Amino acid sequence: MARPDTPVNLAEKLEKLEKLDAYWTPKTVMEVNGLELKVSRFKGEFVWHSHAEGDELFLVLRGTLTIELRDRDAVRLGPGEMFVVPKGVEHRPVTPEGCDVVLLDPEGALNTGDAGGALTRDAEWL
Amino acid sequence: MARPDTPVNLAEKLEKLEKLDAYWTPKTVMEVNGLELKVSRFKGEFVWHSHAEGDELFLVLRGTLTIELRDRDAVRLGPGEMFVVPKGVEHRPVTPEGCDVVLLDPEGALNTGDAGGALTRDAEWL
Repeated sequence: MARPDTPVNLAEKLEKLEKLDAYWTPKTVMEVNGLELKVSRFKGEFVWHSHAEGDELFLVLRGTLTIELRDRDAVRLGPGEMFVVPKGVEHRPVTPEGCDVVLLDPEGALNTGDAGGALTRDAEWL
Repeated sequence: MARPDTPVNLAEKLEKLEKLDAYWTPKTVMEVNGLELKVSRFKGEFVWHSHAEGDELFLVLRGTLTIELRDRDAVRLGPGEMFVVPKGVEHRPVTPEGCDVVLLDPEGALNTGDAGGALTRDAEWL
């Protein structure tokens, strides 16, 4: 899909996403300079993975997200907080209570990165 | 400055920015895939300009922002709404009441783009 040339409302997109009732299924809502801005709902534990394509930004809108990392303490994000996992760095998102997030990835990056597996999703436009 | 490897809290950054009491002075708070994520406070009318380096994303956190464009109706953004001005497209941000925004630009992009002038600011890290 082409980039929308009208305003994109994050709350409306998250409402649409909630109706799909799907966790760990990022949907693209904007494209900027070759990156895709996505919204997703997370709940539970994801798989350890890394992204060879580039850095991944996480911005939490609701709830709390823990990003586990191999060689350092986990990072804990609340609403309005963000963190960038650098290209190639293994990480695992964990959120027992669930959270809503904005992600920013290079175009074509898959949610499970190098790990693949059953939770892999193509990021379709929402 | 190197990209922070700890969480960045947008509300805290905006509080710091408020103490500087400066409008139209974007400050960088994160770097991701060669783009700089900035926060800024806008108030009044900016200058018409465009960015040759790439697209520019605007996400409004507080208040209302109008983005005037040459060949189409202006775009009006409220809190939680975003819009991308494509590379090279002339635009002018206008906000009589003021607003807080997040910007995403290619590294090194100046706030006044091709226009230059008295309002030009280097985006320093906050």
